This record gives sequence, structure tokens and C-alpha cells, in this order.
Amino acid sequence: MDIGFIGLGGMGTAIALNLLRAGHNVTVWNRSAAAAEPLAAAGATVAGSAVQAAGQEILFSMLADDHAVRGVILEGGVLDALSPGAIHVNMATISVALARDLAGRHAKRGAHYVAAPVLGRPDAAAAAKLNILAGGAPEPIGRIQTLFDAIGQKTFRFGEKPEQANAVKLGANFMIAAAIEAMGEAATLVEGFDVSGAAFLEMISSTIFACRVYTGYGEQVAKKQYEPAGFKLRLGLKDVRLALEAADEAATPMPFASVLKDNFLDAVAHGAGNHDWAGLAAVAARRAGR
Amino acid sequence: MDIGFIGLGGMGTAIALNLLRAGHNVTVWNRSAAAAEPLAAAGATVAGSAVQAAGQEILFSMLADDHAVRGVILEGGVLDALSPGAIHVNMATISVALARDLAGRHAKRGAHYVAAPVLGRPDAAAAAKLNILAGGAPEPIGRIQTLFDAIGQKTFRFGEKPEQANAVKLGANFMIAAAIEAMGEAATLVEGFDVSGAAFLEMISSTIFACRVYTGYGEQVAKKQYEPAGFKLRLGLKDVRLALEAADEAATPMPFASVLKDNFLDAVAHGAGNHDWAGLAAVAARRAGR
Amino acid sequence: MDIGFIGLGGMGTAIALNLLRAGHNVTVWNRSAAAAEPLAAAGATVAGSAVQAAGQEILFSMLADDHAVRGVILEGGVLDALSPGAIHVNMATISVALARDLAGRHAKRGAHYVAAPVLGRPDAAAAAKLNILAGGAPEPIGRIQTLFDAIGQKTFRFGEKPEQANAVKLGANFMIAAAIEAMGEAATLVEGFDVSGAAFLEMISSTIFACRVYTGYGEQVAKKQYEPAGFKLRLGLKDVRLALEAADEAATPMPFASVLKDNFLDAVAHGAGNHDWAGLAAVAARRAGR
Amino acid sequence: MDIGFIGLGGMGTAIALNLLRAGHNVTVWNRSAAAAEPLAAAGATVAGSAVQAAGQEILFSMLADDHAVRGVILEGGVLDALSPGAIHVNMATISVALARDLAGRHAKRGAHYVAAPVLGRPDAAAAAKLNILAGGAPEPIGRIQTLFDAIGQKTFRFGEKPEQANAVKLGANFMIAAAIEAMGEAATLVEGFDVSGAAFLEMISSTIFACRVYTGYGEQVAKKQYEPAGFKLRLGLKDVRLALEAADEAATPMPFASVLKDNFLDAVAHGAGNHDWAGLAAVAARRAGR
Repeated sequence: MDIGFIGLGGMGTAIALNLLRAGHNVTVWNRSAAAAEPLAAAGATVAGSAVQAAGQEILFSMLADDHAVRGVILEGGVLDALSPGAIHVNMATISVALARDLAGRHAKRGAHYVAAPVLGRPDAAAAAKLNILAGGAPEPIGRIQTLFDAIGQKTFRFGEKPEQANAVKLGANFMIAAAIEAMGEAATLVEGFDVSGAAFLEMISSTIFACRVYTGYGEQVAKKQYEPAGFKLRLGLKDVRLALEAADEAATPMPFASVLKDNFLDAVAHGAGNHDWAGLAAVAARRAGR
Repeated sequence: MDIGFIGLGGMGTAIALNLLRAGHNVTVWNRSAAAAEPLAAAGATVAGSAVQAAGQEILFSMLADDHAVRGVILEGGVLDALSPGAIHVNMATISVALARDLAGRHAKRGAHYVAAPVLGRPDAAAAAKLNILAGGAPEPIGRIQTLFDAIGQKTFRFGEKPEQANAVKLGANFMIAAAIEAMGEAATLVEGFDVSGAAFLEMISSTIFACRVYTGYGEQVAKKQYEPAGFKLRLGLKDVRLALEAADEAATPMPFASVLKDNFLDAVAHGAGNHDWAGLAAVAARRAGR
Repeated sequence: MDIGFIGLGGMGTAIALNLLRAGHNVTVWNRSAAAAEPLAAAGATVAGSAVQAAGQEILFSMLADDHAVRGVILEGGVLDALSPGAIHVNMATISVALARDLAGRHAKRGAHYVAAPVLGRPDAAAAAKLNILAGGAPEPIGRIQTLFDAIGQKTFRFGEKPEQANAVKLGANFMIAAAIEAMGEAATLVEGFDVSGAAFLEMISSTIFACRVYTGYGEQVAKKQYEPAGFKLRLGLKDVRLALEAADEAATPMPFASVLKDNFLDAVAHGAGNHDWAGLAAVAARRAGR
Repeated sequence: MDIGFIGLGGMGTAIALNLLRAGHNVTVWNRSAAAAEPLAAAGATVAGSAVQAAGQEILFSMLADDHAVRGVILEGGVLDALSPGAIHVNMATISVALARDLAGRHAKRGAHYVAAPVLGRPDAAAAAKLNILAGGAPEPIGRIQTLFDAIGQKTFRFGEKPEQANAVKLGANFMIAAAIEAMGEAATLVEGFDVSGAAFLEMISSTIFACRVYTGYGEQVAKKQYEPAGFKLRLGLKDVRLALEAADEAATPMPFASVLKDNFLDAVAHGAGNHDWAGLAAVAARRAGR
């Protein structure tokens, strides 16, 4: 298929490469042009503008946040450049409110809007092992299922309204942040009794919590090493903020999410905004005076 | 070895049976005598009193809580019945304060006190697959390591002071409760956008949270079925209470634990004290008016 | 002076009447025209549009929230209708972000922007007993001080940037909500021991908390009577939301405000959005199963 | 009347002096004897032991906490020294559990037990302006009402079970701590926008919060001066801990109290245990990195 791809960060680049490898024609664009070079080397066409990339039957976008999506897709003219019947697959972790707004605007224009945030870090993206959380009308999703299969290991569908997939993604990221916080508090507790927090975390993540979120972040928390960042703490704060906004809209108290936001702010106020979000665990230790 | 065993609930029975199977002489006692029958059938001697069971070189106890431990071990005369040099292995999830007190009292009497709370449910105990969290002096723990090997898959040592193992156990149970709460809040959030909470939990526990705490409790939360209880909610409340008491002693703020206690109380106030502690997840839904 | 006045709810009407009584020419406008009648009867000119009301040397506006302010002042053309050198006094409780944005837009246009949210209910407004929280450049505030004196008992100045006064107003409303929540929790606690919550609240508000917030809201909480609403619970939620947004911008954890938002959402989810915000106190009782 | 008085801290001394001034025979005792000297100078008899002071028809005690009460009243033999029909008036802020236990033990012995914690600091005690929160049987309280009138301005009765008065006292102290926390968060919020926290607090405590808790503690928070302590932060922590224990017994979630405990622990972990409890407000500022 003819695919446009906007947003070539670590995730976007890995995904676009897999689309190329699957034999599709991919026209890429990124705000800073240098990021397009590896794609060009792999056979992609480099568009001169986002609008130009938008002129394909399928458009993928993987942008940083609501602000970037609004800037490129709405103010940047991408939406207006979509052909009737085109499918726009937005993989960004954005607010449910913006997702709903975008869905409406695409429908007005006669284009399809599919939300497809993913679970997985850049290494999973490179290995085409992403888990894709899809929201949108079944027909366009059906048409692009082969594309999802080329970039991920499994597609989960969560409803016909695109924002439903965004709610799911926010719920998932909230749960990761909650796991980090729980490790931070528990490690600080046992350290208060002269038990090694690292030994505690190694035990727990090799027994009842032997899954990636705990083994991966647990190791960072155990070593208290939060740089360089795989996923920045200030982005974790952003996602918890979006989860709380969604919860607000749905009149859903989320006391854990509220604690997380306050603790993320504590971390940011102490200079950790660019640390990995596992650094959230440092807040518990600092509050205990350690 | 000659072993006394006090406390024959589901966990105690399974553990004592494994000690018997490993060829040891086990003298058992339980407050309600009926529980001793399966042990007697398997070759155990049934003691007429807790004090009588205490007259062996090694004494295991697996009692419900601080109250039961105080009642049987202190007020019931078990401590006074220990021989000099005897080793008392206390597997109960008790407060760090009581563990510290017991350690001192045993030392005064010339007996060894080992804390050995475990991770694992009755099925893991039956399969001798428990993870044992040991605290106490290395010498007596070394002497009973073969016993731990007969009942568990691995022994983790957390320090020479027995209460250190209790702090670890409280940290672990806190983390389980936190995982349940996180699932409850996230499922309620996505349900606010007409996404199936069950579908969300199935996705999350088959991808980034593919470990037992999430798959097991996640299934209960997905089905909203909290009876019969594997581990009662009021015992979960007890453990979070003990974690907070330990945190208080160590001047450690634990905001997640504080939320958990309030939500456990909410659950108890709504009649769920005897539900499985996975029922904690129902609080988030009720607060959202669903 | 020649004054325009936009927004004739209970507060706006009372304030505009006091400006009239002080001898000023007041041109009023309200979205639903009926609200302008009492003002017309008292000598005000009724404008045919918000833009027309904006053509005076001084413009007061008292609108409900960010949405209304954006709709009328920005999208409705009021800002563009201001004369160079005009002073716009915005008395609404709005976000610091919008206040900052408005200040910048007014400056670009050559108009002055003063934030002047107030403390006091409609009865205090009618009695010209408001406390005025002013933010903005000293010169325009100096010019309108006589107007503030005509409508309030005291003007507090909080800085040259208008949004500073909005931050203060949000801090004040947060404190009122916190007082209500504290009363709700304490009353529920004592009721758990068969003490009358009403007796408790009467005692506390006649001794160490003998000030209006506690006597007034305390009486509502004591009677558990939350209708009709003096200030709607959903507006209280809005203000706590704005306080948290401001706190987010300033990297300030506010755990009490976080609890308040969750409890306001709990109240809204249980149908109390249009109750008086004293109804926040009912959440504690409901969570305790009473 | 013949009165024994145990516990001569700042509060106890002031109260005992007022009983003397009212013409009663007062026999005093304090653990460190020096504290009895001012009383002796004013005409009190100094007892050689707590037991000796207990041999009067009325016994007042004003001890620091549960530990001191248990030590003196139970283990120290005071209870056993009470005459049949004697009235013991316990003014300490203790747990509801201990109050209940004491009530039962006194009844068994044929003595009356009245709980009478007070609201007011030493200056109010000296001026006989205390507010007395009484719990217990009406008959003995009736008999000592003249004594209450000699030391306080008003007696509030909260039920026939003494612990009911203790629950009320814990509720009141919780509310004071909540007011301090609210001031701390709000002041930190406005300081994030370069508004003087002191100016904010002065405004708020001279307008809608013009009552003693806010004016008094507000001034300390404004000056950020927490030494010397009028009431130590670690005692404030103790009282919130007791409030949470009472709430736990009554299955009452108290999220504000939970936040308070965590923040008190944060303060203690940062060396503020002996500061005035107004120092709780410093936690919000520190968490915001200021």
C-alpha cells in the first residue's frame, strides 16, 4: 500500500522501517529532517512537508503529545490534505478529548480516523513485537490489519470510538507508574529496617512479580540509576495527567493516580523531569529523609 | 529431626505434611483438634497441648495474626516450654514490633527465634514451592535449611534480625494490594468510556503484566467475583495496617499504603470483609457510581 | 465614571447595583436579557450586545468560568471592542493560564487588564462587603480603587501580574473545600462512636473554629441538607481542578487538593453535582457505609 | 472537695492552680518533683507518690499519652488505690481503645471514670477558659460540674461512654492539623506564582478564616518559624495516629487524616519532630523544591 508516515522518533522510525520491510511504499516526514535519513536509506520517499506525506491512502502518525498532534495535524494542514476515504492511524498517546475531537473532524472530511497507541519500547518496535491497542470503525481497521501485523505481535480492539483505545493506553501507563511507585514505597519501607532494597526488589521480581514491568523498572529502582532515560519522567507525568483528565470526564475517582501526579510533581520539582520515569521511586526515599 | 508444629490452617497443614514426607518426626497441635486428623493419618503425633508440641528441638508455628501469636506463644506458655537451644520458626505474617519483642524474649530464654514468613498460597505450599523469607541468626537458619528445602523452592535471607523478614513480607503484601487497586482503578477508568474492563485486564495481564499477581487477581477483578475468598479482605487490611505501622516506626510516608487502608475500610464498611481481597477493586467502581 | 458590566448573575447584579448607587453610569449586558431588568429599573443602560457594553472607559465582567470568558471576551469580540487605555476588570474565578493569556492579549491591544476575583457570597456583594483580590498594574488599579471601595470592604493587592490574584482566589477556594472535607471526615469519625455529628460540629464551630466558613458550612453539614445550593458542588470541583492545574504548572504537590478532587468526583458520580458544595461532606459518610 | 491531681505539665499546673483558687484541697503529684513546687507554694499538698494522690474522692490526671497513662494509672497502681465511689477524671488525649479499657476497669473496681479532654492551650487553661469535652455517666459528671466550671468556660457532654469524648477530641485535633496542612498547601501554591505566602495567609485569616486556629497557626506558617514549640509536631502525629486508629475501628476512611500522617512522618524524617506542629506546613514547600 501507499503509506505516509509522520513522526520519526525512536518508535516511529522502527515502525516505519517494518512497514518498508513488508513491501509497502512509505513516504516519511519529520520536523527535523535528519531523522528521515535512515528511512530514506531503507527505501522510503522523503516528503518535503507533512502535508505532502498526508496525500497517501494510509497515513500513520506517531507524534509526542497533544500539542504536537494539534500543531501538525490540525494547524499544520495535514487533516485538510487527507483524501476522501483515506485512513489516518494515530499512534500517539494523546488525551481522550483530543482523540474524540479528531475523530469528529476526520468524519466531517470523509476520512477515517483510527487510534492505535501501542505497548512496547523501541526494541519491541524494532522486533515488530508491539501490542497494538486499536480503536475505531471495524472496516478501516480491517483494511489495515496486515499493516498492524507487520509492526506488532497482536492487535487488541477496544471499540468503535477511537478514544476508547486512548483510554486503554492511559490506563496501561497508569498501571506501570503505579507499579513503580509501589516498588519505591516498599523498597523504602524495608530499607527502614536495614534490609537491602535491591535484594527485596530482586526477590519480588523473581517470584510473584516476575514480569517485565517489575523486572525492568525494578532493576533501575534497585540501582537507583535513572539516567539515561528510556521514557522521560515528565512524559510519565503527562500520561498520568491525561489519565486523570479522562477520569474527571468519567466522574471516576482515582486516588492512586492522584498520588502519582503529586509524586511526579515532587520529582520534577527536585530536578528529575528528564530522568527515566522509574525515578518516581526516588520520591519515597527522599520523603523518608534518605 | 524432631519437630513441633503449631497452627494447622490450610498453609500449616500443607507445610507440616511436607515435613512428614521428608522423613521427620512431627508433633502437631491446633486449637480446634479436627484439623490435626489429616496429619495424624499421615503419621504425625498429635499433641494434647501447644506446650507439649513445643518440647521438640525445632518448633514451627503458623498462626493467624499478632493476637493469635501472643495468645499461644506468650500467654499460652509455649515460649516458656522451649528447651534451651531450641529453634522456633515463626511463619506468621505479624508486626515487626511483635517479631522484635519475640526475638528478645527467645534470646533471654536461650532459644533461637527465626522469622520465616512465606510467599505462596496453599497450592504452592502443598507443592513445596513456597518462597521463604527468612530473618534471624545464620547459625540456626543453617541448621534448618534442609527443612526449608523440604517445604519451599527457595529461601531468601534478609538479615540477622528476625523482624527484617517480617518487614519484607509486609512490603510484598503491600505490593500485591497495590496491584489489585491499580487494576481496579484502571478497569473503572476504561469502563467509563464503554470499554470492557475484563477485556482491558485480559490484555494487560497477557502483555506487560504477565505474572501471577495480575493474571490471578486480574481474572477475579474481571469477573467481579470475590467469593469464596482465597485470602480474606480483612486479612489484607490487617497486613496493610501492619505495613503502615512499620512505616510509621521508620518515619516512612507510604501514600499508596494509606490509600489502600482507606479503600479496604470502605470495602469492609460495605460488607466485603470476608470477600477475597481482590474485592478491593470493587471500591473504585462503587465510588464512580457504577 | 462610564462603566460597562457584563455578566448579571447573583454576584454581578449585586455588584453592578452598588456601582450605580455610587453614582456611576453603568451599561449592562447579560446573555439572557431578563437578568438586566432590575438593573434597568435602577437606572442602568441596557446594551444590545456584549460588544456595545465594552465601549466604556471601564469594563467589569463577572462570568461563570473559563469557557464563558473565552466565549464572550475572546470569541464574542469584547476584547476587540475595548478602547485603547480602557481597563477591563475581570472578577471571574478563572484559571491562571487563561488570566495570563488575557493579560497578554489586552496589553497587545493597548488596554489594561485587572484580575479582581472576590471573596464573599451574594449577600456580602449586596452589602458592599466583598473582599477584593486584585492583581495587575498599580496605575489602572489606582484609577479604579474608588469603584472597588463602592463594592467591597477591602482590596488586597497580590502583584502586578493579574494571574497572581487568580492563584490567590484558587488557594482560598481550595481552603474552603478543605474545611468542608475536614468537617465531613471528623463528623463521620465521631458518629462511628455514636456521638452526634451535629453536636460535634456545633461545638467545634463555636470554639476553636468560630469563623464563617465553619459556622456556615458546618450548619449545612450538621443538618445534612445540601439543597438548594448557594454554590454548586460542580463549581467547587471546577475550582479545585483549576487549583490543581495551577499547582501542576508550579510543580507543587497538593495532596489535600488531590483528595478533594477525587471526593468531588465521587459526589458528582452519586448525583450531587447540583447540591451545595457543602455536600462534599456526604462522601465521607457514604464511604463509611452510613 | 478533696482532689488528687496527677500530671503537672503546663496544662496540668494551670488547671490545678484554678482548682486551688476555687477553694478545694488539692493533693498533687508529678513524676519529676520540681513541677510540684509552684503548686505547693499556692497551697497544694504534695504527695509522695501517685498512689498517695489517688486516695481522694476526686482524682484528676493530665498525662502525656497512652504510654504514660498505662504506666501511672495501671502499672503504677493508681487504679487499685481508688476508693469505691471515687471519680477519676482523665483529661489526657488518649486512644479510644485505652479509654474504653479504663472505663471497664474502673467500673469493675466500683470507681467512676470520666473522660474530660480539653480544647485550649496553657494560656486558656490559666485563664480558666478551657472548653471541656466530657464523656461518662451523668451522675458523676454532675457531681464535678462545679470543678469543670472552675477550670473552663464551657462543658460539652458527648455521651455516657467516656471514649466518646476522646473520639471528639481526636476529631478536633485532626481538624486543626487539617487546617495547618491546607494553609501550607495554599501558601505554597500562591508562592509558585510569586505571591507572598505571608500576605495570602494574612488576608485569608482576616477575612473568611478569621478564627484562632487560622490566625494563630497562620502567623507561624507565614513566618516559617516553628520553634519553640507550643505543641510538638510529634504529638500532633500521635493524635492523627490515634484518630486513624479510631477510624479503623469504626471502618471509616479518612483520606485527609491519611495524608496528614504521611506528611507528619515526612516532617519527622526531616528533623522537625520537636518543632511546633504548625511546621507541618513546611512539608508542602519542601516537596515543591522550595
